[in-house]
Amino acid sequence: MSDAALPRTGTSTDAFETRLGEVLTRMRERAYAFPAPYSQLWETVERMATGGKKIRPRLLLGAYEALGGIDERSAIDAACAMELLHLALVIHDDVIDKDVTRRGEMNITGSFASEAMVRGAGRSEATAWGEASSLLAGDLVLTLSHSLLARLEVPEDRRQAVLDVFDDTVFESAAGEHHDVWLSMRLEQSSPEDVLAMVDQKTAAYSFRAPLVTAAVLAGATTALITELESIARQIGVVYQLRDDVLGLFGDEHQTGKSTLSDLREGKETLLVTYARSDVAWTGVEHLFGDPSLTAADGARLRRVIEESGALVFVESVIAERCTAIDEAIRAASLPPSLHTQLTELTVTCRTRVS
Amino acid sequence: MSDAALPRTGTSTDAFETRLGEVLTRMRERAYAFPAPYSQLWETVERMATGGKKIRPRLLLGAYEALGGIDERSAIDAACAMELLHLALVIHDDVIDKDVTRRGEMNITGSFASEAMVRGAGRSEATAWGEASSLLAGDLVLTLSHSLLARLEVPEDRRQAVLDVFDDTVFESAAGEHHDVWLSMRLEQSSPEDVLAMVDQKTAAYSFRAPLVTAAVLAGATTALITELESIARQIGVVYQLRDDVLGLFGDEHQTGKSTLSDLREGKETLLVTYARSDVAWTGVEHLFGDPSLTAADGARLRRVIEESGALVFVESVIAERCTAIDEAIRAASLPPSLHTQLTELTVTCRTRVS
Repeated sequence: MSDAALPRTGTSTDAFETRLGEVLTRMRERAYAFPAPYSQLWETVERMATGGKKIRPRLLLGAYEALGGIDERSAIDAACAMELLHLALVIHDDVIDKDVTRRGEMNITGSFASEAMVRGAGRSEATAWGEASSLLAGDLVLTLSHSLLARLEVPEDRRQAVLDVFDDTVFESAAGEHHDVWLSMRLEQSSPEDVLAMVDQKTAAYSFRAPLVTAAVLAGATTALITELESIARQIGVVYQLRDDVLGLFGDEHQTGKSTLSDLREGKETLLVTYARSDVAWTGVEHLFGDPSLTAADGARLRRVIEESGALVFVESVIAERCTAIDEAIRAASLPPSLHTQLTELTVTCRTRVS
Repeated sequence: MSDAALPRTGTSTDAFETRLGEVLTRMRERAYAFPAPYSQLWETVERMATGGKKIRPRLLLGAYEALGGIDERSAIDAACAMELLHLALVIHDDVIDKDVTRRGEMNITGSFASEAMVRGAGRSEATAWGEASSLLAGDLVLTLSHSLLARLEVPEDRRQAVLDVFDDTVFESAAGEHHDVWLSMRLEQSSPEDVLAMVDQKTAAYSFRAPLVTAAVLAGATTALITELESIARQIGVVYQLRDDVLGLFGDEHQTGKSTLSDLREGKETLLVTYARSDVAWTGVEHLFGDPSLTAADGARLRRVIEESGALVFVESVIAERCTAIDEAIRAASLPPSLHTQLTELTVTCRTRVS
């Protein structure tokens, strides 16, 4: 996603990076009192947290400023919490998917497992060690995120409301992730509605609703405005994820940093796939879908069947529809002009991004 | 562990059970808005939370009352948080150990995997689904525990101090768990000190230190007293875990509900094993240790080598030494008589328990 189209918040963004660095450095330093692998775990977490697009904290900070918020310190801590929640969910998602890489680099599981193998551990033992390291890192980062929000120095009703958003978000993201794994087993037929509901729960809730609603709560927005923002955020999140699914299959690997085989190998039940299943040609390639050793040629075959089923056109039409609905919702909401602009730009970015 | 020797707190304990039930019922009811497997996940969590000895909440409630605490409602919420933290750690521990049962019954992984197999999923897919369910359940229960503490209606400095205890506890338990997995790979030689430090971090911190210190903080105890209680709690925790290790190998399976083969099959690096490794006879049985399909006869052989190495006598002497130190620390601390009695009884129970 191009940086240019994301909410810009000037000094806040720098202050956010500084604060996130501080929070994680403190944890790593505490870890030095424990055996070496534990501080290595925190070093890895710190490295992971310095990358990425920072969509969620920037959305929070941009919205907070636009809504007239003036307590920059609390907004920054909340922004750190959003980024850490994202990191925790990503780390645990990798455990669930048994992934050893993320964005072309080894993730926690991969790096801990490979180091153990270098030191003489067997493959399965080393993998178990890598997975345990990821699982614990996710727990720690989730706790750290929650902890920042629990300690916000804001009026008590706002603090409680922020904690409510956090609780709801974890509850809903876990529901979406659980649903995703369930759908990927294909024990029952799934409808496009099922897949869209899952996407909304798994991604939109924590990536867009949580930062935007948290910003609004902290800035003291009215309940009516919060409700409007909630609906806008959820729809942007769905557009973001549908574009992600399209890029996962048809994107430029150099730009996305992700193989166009990986979703197919994993058997990821996206809206594209759910749609393609209703096409008669699917039966001829179904056995390839979810094959962990899928070849490039068979991947191309699967993609062709998906495209010729009309799935790509269908998903693009859902994206377009959602974008129209978002534009209408943004216009109907009584937003400060700068937030109006930010959300419009964010929607365009989510719709048109190539990475 | 016999119920009779645990702190008794009369109405508090009933009120605790009621409150824990309420908290979990509310979560399950919210989950009905999501696909069926998600509410099943919450039903399973609720069922798991109704069993067990409730050592941690009872310790917290007993200590709080003894220290003159009068805000029963906050103490009960904190007690629920301790029980939920225990549950979350146990659920994630099972993921790390790839266990499918706990105390002779199927755990979350086992029950979700077996139901998926009944519905037609393949074994490895079903296991991945079971593990994903456990991982998400652990995240949810960890968040729920943290959330109860974040919302305690107590003076702000005490709320912050309780959150500090929680953060430290998660940090330290994760360090201990990480260290435990590391030691079990045996890439470097471990000393009895390493194993004792791991036990202290992994079990004593969350099972004994956290409930006792949280109770003291909430009751407004002095910093000096909190420091004394912290040290007592840690030592009780080590006694508890060392007895657990002994029971795991030499206990009565009918009373413990756990096979005396499981720690040996898992290759659990307990103090018993670390000690036995220095015996020349160990080299003859080392290949059996950590063998997932260890037979009963080979298990008996391993146990004999461990016992004849003097490991059992050594561990019993460490337990006895710690108990003496605990008694001295209890006497030296200026505790209210009822807390003195409770901690003394708890130590005896941890030392002498047979289940």
